[in-house]
Amino acid sequence: MATSNNNYHKLAGSYLFSEIAKRTGAFKREFPTREIFHLGIGNTTQPLSPIVIDGLEYGVKKLASSKTYTGYGEEQGNMPLRNELVAFYKKRNVHLLEEEIFISDGAKSDIANIQSIFAANSIVAIQDPVYPVYVDSNVIAGRSGKFSNGTYEGFVYMPCTRENSFFPALPDKKVDLIYICSPNNPTGTVATKQQLREFVTYAKSQKAIIIFDAAYSAFIQDDAIPRSIYEIEGSKECAIEINSFSKYAGFTGVRLGWTVVPKTLMAQNTTEGELNFLWNRRQTTMFNGASNIAQEGGIAALSDKGQQQCQKIIHIYMKNAEIIGNCFRNLGFDVFGGIHAPYIWLKTPKNLSSWEFFDILLQKAGVVSTPGVGFGLHGEGYMRFSSFGNPEMVRKATKQIAKTISI
Amino acid sequence: MATSNNNYHKLAGSYLFSEIAKRTGAFKREFPTREIFHLGIGNTTQPLSPIVIDGLEYGVKKLASSKTYTGYGEEQGNMPLRNELVAFYKKRNVHLLEEEIFISDGAKSDIANIQSIFAANSIVAIQDPVYPVYVDSNVIAGRSGKFSNGTYEGFVYMPCTRENSFFPALPDKKVDLIYICSPNNPTGTVATKQQLREFVTYAKSQKAIIIFDAAYSAFIQDDAIPRSIYEIEGSKECAIEINSFSKYAGFTGVRLGWTVVPKTLMAQNTTEGELNFLWNRRQTTMFNGASNIAQEGGIAALSDKGQQQCQKIIHIYMKNAEIIGNCFRNLGFDVFGGIHAPYIWLKTPKNLSSWEFFDILLQKAGVVSTPGVGFGLHGEGYMRFSSFGNPEMVRKATKQIAKTISI
Repeated sequence: MATSNNNYHKLAGSYLFSEIAKRTGAFKREFPTREIFHLGIGNTTQPLSPIVIDGLEYGVKKLASSKTYTGYGEEQGNMPLRNELVAFYKKRNVHLLEEEIFISDGAKSDIANIQSIFAANSIVAIQDPVYPVYVDSNVIAGRSGKFSNGTYEGFVYMPCTRENSFFPALPDKKVDLIYICSPNNPTGTVATKQQLREFVTYAKSQKAIIIFDAAYSAFIQDDAIPRSIYEIEGSKECAIEINSFSKYAGFTGVRLGWTVVPKTLMAQNTTEGELNFLWNRRQTTMFNGASNIAQEGGIAALSDKGQQQCQKIIHIYMKNAEIIGNCFRNLGFDVFGGIHAPYIWLKTPKNLSSWEFFDILLQKAGVVSTPGVGFGLHGEGYMRFSSFGNPEMVRKATKQIAKTISI
Repeated sequence: MATSNNNYHKLAGSYLFSEIAKRTGAFKREFPTREIFHLGIGNTTQPLSPIVIDGLEYGVKKLASSKTYTGYGEEQGNMPLRNELVAFYKKRNVHLLEEEIFISDGAKSDIANIQSIFAANSIVAIQDPVYPVYVDSNVIAGRSGKFSNGTYEGFVYMPCTRENSFFPALPDKKVDLIYICSPNNPTGTVATKQQLREFVTYAKSQKAIIIFDAAYSAFIQDDAIPRSIYEIEGSKECAIEINSFSKYAGFTGVRLGWTVVPKTLMAQNTTEGELNFLWNRRQTTMFNGASNIAQEGGIAALSDKGQQQCQKIIHIYMKNAEIIGNCFRNLGFDVFGGIHAPYIWLKTPKNLSSWEFFDILLQKAGVVSTPGVGFGLHGEGYMRFSSFGNPEMVRKATKQIAKTISI
């Protein structure tokens, strides 16, 4: 008699985006002629850069001829792409081996799956507010108790508040796995070298492992801020890094990402190289490699010219972030993030709840945002704005906000 | 203190293909001038059909313009592709809803991940010999005891032998999940309607769930043989089907597959629609959709012209299968499979072990095959040959076999 995995039943409803859609739909029905501006969702809108298109087309063309056709590649990714990534890290003085890099169909899959190589009873620390995949993948794997009052029993929450500039203090309990996202989704803030150093020192002393989500690292504008956890000394002994072509090269739909599991990374019960071996085993057993077409696009995106062209697109989004941030700043709001990240994190006025201010923005300005409380209890009273929209739409949206919203 | 998932340590070494590579490498070093023929690996070699190339190129071109660019799609797959699949099944009189179909980056991922929606203590039944992913994914998830004498404790093995024409008897113990692959990898045999009917009746009576791997269904040449488990009455209440564009359209490197979880499928502790909902939750939480480029290729492959062109490629492989099968038949061997499947399953002569005959084929004919014992205990004394090679190479290989091998 088959029975379902009861851990799924513990998951809190994926309430956030469906509730946004519900309220937006109701507004549309009530005011069918009013323009709606979407500043909520983190989905890219700019077309791919020419050199990346060339790379993808080359990938397709290779499949048209028996001389160049390839079927299954290595599950870990094609070697030329892994070589490019080694070179990409080397520029930042991070030295990795090809076999420490695992190409995948995107950061989300890896972030969700990486917990598979750790013990079922691992204690998980997460930032609050937080990207939901860290939480949900561990709930499904059975590492939480039940959900009540906005948190799961068993998880160690690390509040990110205005008081700590949205970067958490060290966990106040013993933990095994620590998820850190920098530049951060949803707060748009970024961790300094010193902040990451403290976590690395802590993780090493506790033999905990940091799972570092660097999906937004291409948005960092200041060379003093680490783009990789491996810029911190000692991190290769305690950290896994996950990254993506989604936001760097516009591959949200193309699907390509990578994970670094250093050979020197160790858990309590493993020898050197063993966690790298386990992730290799997970990927070769349960995954069949990223699309060879996408991988050709990735190689193009990492070429010198590709990096230049991708940076141009990132500048478009960063300009959006500046416009949104300035719009609210000019109105007297408290605005965070948006400098080294594509997200703006806004304090609601008059201590309104996230959903109350969501409704005001929608009703008055026709702007759809993301209520911060949707990312965790400590997101209450905040809103997330995404800079991934079309620049023209962003300009129109901010004009509407300036005209209709006051503090 | 992080600790690793100990279930990985239970996994028997992935000995098969590395041992093949080792023996082949040694042979090459000893006889550097001799030609080697690869009839082992199930990797496609024929270029994609023109209409599929057009579809992929269209997918790339769309990403070059802001008017047609798309980022994240639905995690369940783009609706036009799901519509095409509904139509694809309809031709075989199978009526599915779009929301019962989940597009993925390939059958291997889905086969490995589907167990996630079932209870950790589910009892798993597998064919022996067997495609290793069914086994390994459940070992990693903790559903087995330790590996000894070629089997894992806790799994229910269903032997596929010459006596039962390589289709198993019903499980002899109570089981919860039953993996069936037809056309079968590695035996190349195919289940009849009557055989599947017995399993469906059994699963319904036991409230067990069948996970049906139909990745090779495009190779079925006889309309009386079911290409989908859903051609069997009542199966929508007890079966999940997983399929792929890899072998149908040559997408081994492009990466595209799908899984069907009927709304009417139920486990002991679920209501109608709930398992469909759980798989939806798994995919939306831990996956971000298949590549939009690959999906355009998939739509092209399912068009009338696409189906015709893909069938032409399948005929090339089936011709290979015929040539390999006839070669051994003419030599007096017992040959199975290869009629409705791309694999030939060969009984070794004189009761030689799989590895003994592997060495003879390599040394005498320069042919690399896959020892059947690598797929499970009941594969001992058999060899698997793949028909996915280049036709010219297959002809040369079979000539060498005819010249050098005798029974």
